[in-house]
Amino acid sequence: MYFCLTFTIILEQHMTTQELVAQIKKKKSFLCIGLDVDLTKIPQHLLQKKDPIFAFNKAIIDATHHLCVAYKPNTAFYEAYGIKGWKSLEKTIKYINKKYPEIFTIADAKRGDIGNTSTMYAKAFLEDLAFDSVTVAPYMGKDSVEPFLAFQDKHTIMLALTSNQGAFDFQTKNVVESNKIDKNNKIDTPKELYKQVLETSKSWKNSQNLMYVVGATKAEYFKEIRKIVPDSFLLVPGVGAQGGNLQDVCKFGMNKNIGLLINSSRGIIYASDKKDFADKSAVKALELQQQMQDILNQ
Amino acid sequence: MYFCLTFTIILEQHMTTQELVAQIKKKKSFLCIGLDVDLTKIPQHLLQKKDPIFAFNKAIIDATHHLCVAYKPNTAFYEAYGIKGWKSLEKTIKYINKKYPEIFTIADAKRGDIGNTSTMYAKAFLEDLAFDSVTVAPYMGKDSVEPFLAFQDKHTIMLALTSNQGAFDFQTKNVVESNKIDKNNKIDTPKELYKQVLETSKSWKNSQNLMYVVGATKAEYFKEIRKIVPDSFLLVPGVGAQGGNLQDVCKFGMNKNIGLLINSSRGIIYASDKKDFADKSAVKALELQQQMQDILNQ
Repeated sequence: MYFCLTFTIILEQHMTTQELVAQIKKKKSFLCIGLDVDLTKIPQHLLQKKDPIFAFNKAIIDATHHLCVAYKPNTAFYEAYGIKGWKSLEKTIKYINKKYPEIFTIADAKRGDIGNTSTMYAKAFLEDLAFDSVTVAPYMGKDSVEPFLAFQDKHTIMLALTSNQGAFDFQTKNVVESNKIDKNNKIDTPKELYKQVLETSKSWKNSQNLMYVVGATKAEYFKEIRKIVPDSFLLVPGVGAQGGNLQDVCKFGMNKNIGLLINSSRGIIYASDKKDFADKSAVKALELQQQMQDILNQ
Repeated sequence: MYFCLTFTIILEQHMTTQELVAQIKKKKSFLCIGLDVDLTKIPQHLLQKKDPIFAFNKAIIDATHHLCVAYKPNTAFYEAYGIKGWKSLEKTIKYINKKYPEIFTIADAKRGDIGNTSTMYAKAFLEDLAFDSVTVAPYMGKDSVEPFLAFQDKHTIMLALTSNQGAFDFQTKNVVESNKIDKNNKIDTPKELYKQVLETSKSWKNSQNLMYVVGATKAEYFKEIRKIVPDSFLLVPGVGAQGGNLQDVCKFGMNKNIGLLINSSRGIIYASDKKDFADKSAVKALELQQQMQDILNQ
């Protein structure tokens, strides 16, 4: 009995990559559902509930949990409602961890700060809220990310190539090592910043806990990315609302462990703003799961 | 009476750059105090209070408000305590805005996301919590930052060159425009990433609302930075605990409007862990204010 209890607690709070892969194969799905709850978009009858955000999430989760392997609340949508929003986020992650502990959870927070401060963020999301993973931004480098990587059997999902237009401002700029520029300004191998980010991060401590955000709107990039990080999981936003194509992403991005989590938010959770919203979200999730099943069976 | 009330509300929620400069000249200080509250470091007698974090902040603020022009709570330290922490943050910003509306407030959140999500963050920090400014990360580019810039008479403080070791991982890497590399791999003008970030951001909509984070540990960089952003305010962490030198920073970084906010956190707020902590923090703040006064009088 004692051992059994201990085992349950560990299962709820940690998830290894192997366990995630097993879930994907079992459910024939690598779908991640983004829980980006906007009170102006959810069915109006929910606004009478004490906690409309949690009521919405709970209904969506109960209707879709068998079709997806991950949920990803973007923290901005919760912070926007202040303390009430944080309570809803807490209730949501607790609900998933308790009722569906096999689901991989992602705090989409895009954090990153100097060492001791990053530790505070890591503790908040990975330990206190007990998410399986958190997204981070790479700009501040190694010592801003390693505090997240220090958590065993937790995952740090670093922005590499994002799905927005602004990705072209810096992420795709060519980077060269200073010491490789000779006096004639001649360089050897310019490398796009996002590739430098991928490459550099592989040398960080506990880099086995890294996954990466790679936007689906640029499927042709996946081929190059897989040369640098062949084994890593990639979290892929931008399928659906942002225009990415699932087939293309899988063609270039999939590896022997599948290695992809495809995120859809608005396309699923706002499928209907009526009382049938949860059922309709399941229909949309099923559509994507079926496409994924076809791809996995190929 | 009606006009008077309106005026007060506006004063509490907005601050123009001119008002900030006027405060600096009046107080002969460009000190920003970082309210990075760690319950393991504050005086133990405060732990008996209902809200130890707010009690600590209130005492520090009351003791130092005449010596500084800005307060900067780093959100990580509040998120680390969950809902309780958010309540403390809310109480702290409300207290400053009500009692010391002349103080410039910075939510050190280092946020950044795709457009509609960045809007949620901007609303949370600049509108609901009514901070005068928020720090953001540049990696996701223009459309991740412009939603913050859209708030009139609010300020967006973007990471350029940070004070940690990891700054050298990507920020100081040389960047070249793809179209400037010819077939012999020859380039014209390689530019460090942080300079590219500064340069590019100047073309963004409402860029007059931008300030930049530039770490004090690299004072020699300020000369180059001032060539790109001669008029912008720079928020400078890393004086004191992280080893930066105030004289050097001012020598290279100051402009005709002063243009600097020098942040000190641990060096001031943890000056003592006894009952005299607030008085001792004022002593440390006064030391820095006096050095600043000397520099301003030179």
